[in-house]
Amino acid sequence: MTINTLQEDLRAFAAEREWQSFHTPENLAKSISIEAAELLECFQWGPDSREDDVRHELADVLTYCLMMANRLGLDAETIIREKLEITRVKYPIERSRGRSEKYDRL
Amino acid sequence: MTINTLQEDLRAFAAEREWQSFHTPENLAKSISIEAAELLECFQWGPDSREDDVRHELADVLTYCLMMANRLGLDAETIIREKLEITRVKYPIERSRGRSEKYDRL
Amino acid sequence: MTINTLQEDLRAFAAEREWQSFHTPENLAKSISIEAAELLECFQWGPDSREDDVRHELADVLTYCLMMANRLGLDAETIIREKLEITRVKYPIERSRGRSEKYDRL
Amino acid sequence: MTINTLQEDLRAFAAEREWQSFHTPENLAKSISIEAAELLECFQWGPDSREDDVRHELADVLTYCLMMANRLGLDAETIIREKLEITRVKYPIERSRGRSEKYDRL
Repeated sequence: MTINTLQEDLRAFAAEREWQSFHTPENLAKSISIEAAELLECFQWGPDSREDDVRHELADVLTYCLMMANRLGLDAETIIREKLEITRVKYPIERSRGRSEKYDRL
Repeated sequence: MTINTLQEDLRAFAAEREWQSFHTPENLAKSISIEAAELLECFQWGPDSREDDVRHELADVLTYCLMMANRLGLDAETIIREKLEITRVKYPIERSRGRSEKYDRL
Repeated sequence: MTINTLQEDLRAFAAEREWQSFHTPENLAKSISIEAAELLECFQWGPDSREDDVRHELADVLTYCLMMANRLGLDAETIIREKLEITRVKYPIERSRGRSEKYDRL
Repeated sequence: MTINTLQEDLRAFAAEREWQSFHTPENLAKSISIEAAELLECFQWGPDSREDDVRHELADVLTYCLMMANRLGLDAETIIREKLEITRVKYPIERSRGRSEKYDRL
């Protein structure tokens, strides 16, 4: 199934609950940060984590991201691929292989 | 195109650069929080934002989320839909309509 | 020197620049998250970090926290000590010694 | 009372519970981001918030920041004042008055 169908289903979910007025871009940006921190909390004291918690928190971040894409009239796959091309140029394979430095330090 | 294909393309992107050793679940959780904050920064002082910045930062959060799904062997759509069903039960339409309270305060 | 004097100096710094209208509690909460993520970025790929970066980013988080305390008319030391007493009760020494679990799992 | 005394009291609090091994700089950086997001959650859907929640969450961020300063052997006031001088130069009063732009856009 396409991301587009998924975005559509999430839009319907929010619309049924009349949550569109809360889902401003600014509020969704806050929500994404909040959920990202709940995901991070799974790893607060080290690399070990509870699989179920991680899966649910990751899903929450993704859900709010898709809701934000909806709100901005963006197709998630398109913007991911657009950004991937930018990153591809910033991190050429030969210079970035096996290195975690930022592009401006490569 | 399916999310699965997109996850596969991102996996190849990281593999070409031999970034798998950096992409532990813990490091990806940190990365998602970091990128989420860059998205939030677009709205630091209010609701107005630069559209290009928002689109790129949102793409970054999504990208790291899909990389994390890859790392954990999860299909992004499956976990989003699984969590959506949980949320659907926590927030019944009649009780949550037009309200932003958390389910335990509804 | 007391925290109170420091809070006062930060208040003057913001007032000279007429930043009070930007420094709403909501905007400061966003700012604290944004700076916290910049601190986290020092450790994105592992425990090693550049000492200067860490020091400056930690200072940024603290600064916005004190500005928020200012905005809310709170004394930072008072609220830290108030919360410490709550945590002391939640985490009795004998039950929490050498353990990182949350109080509801101890 | 000085920040130094407060840092000392927090150090004792953690030491009594033998939490020093969890309190690595990396784990504390994660903890600061996590608590910052809990503070942000007070403002997730708008500027209104519950005062008690804000106060406690702000205290949590500050507490972890001071614990990190402890861990790194830093005096919180010193690093805040050091960074303030840097910010003072980046944001001269006459150019930054009443503006929220970043220094590189002023």
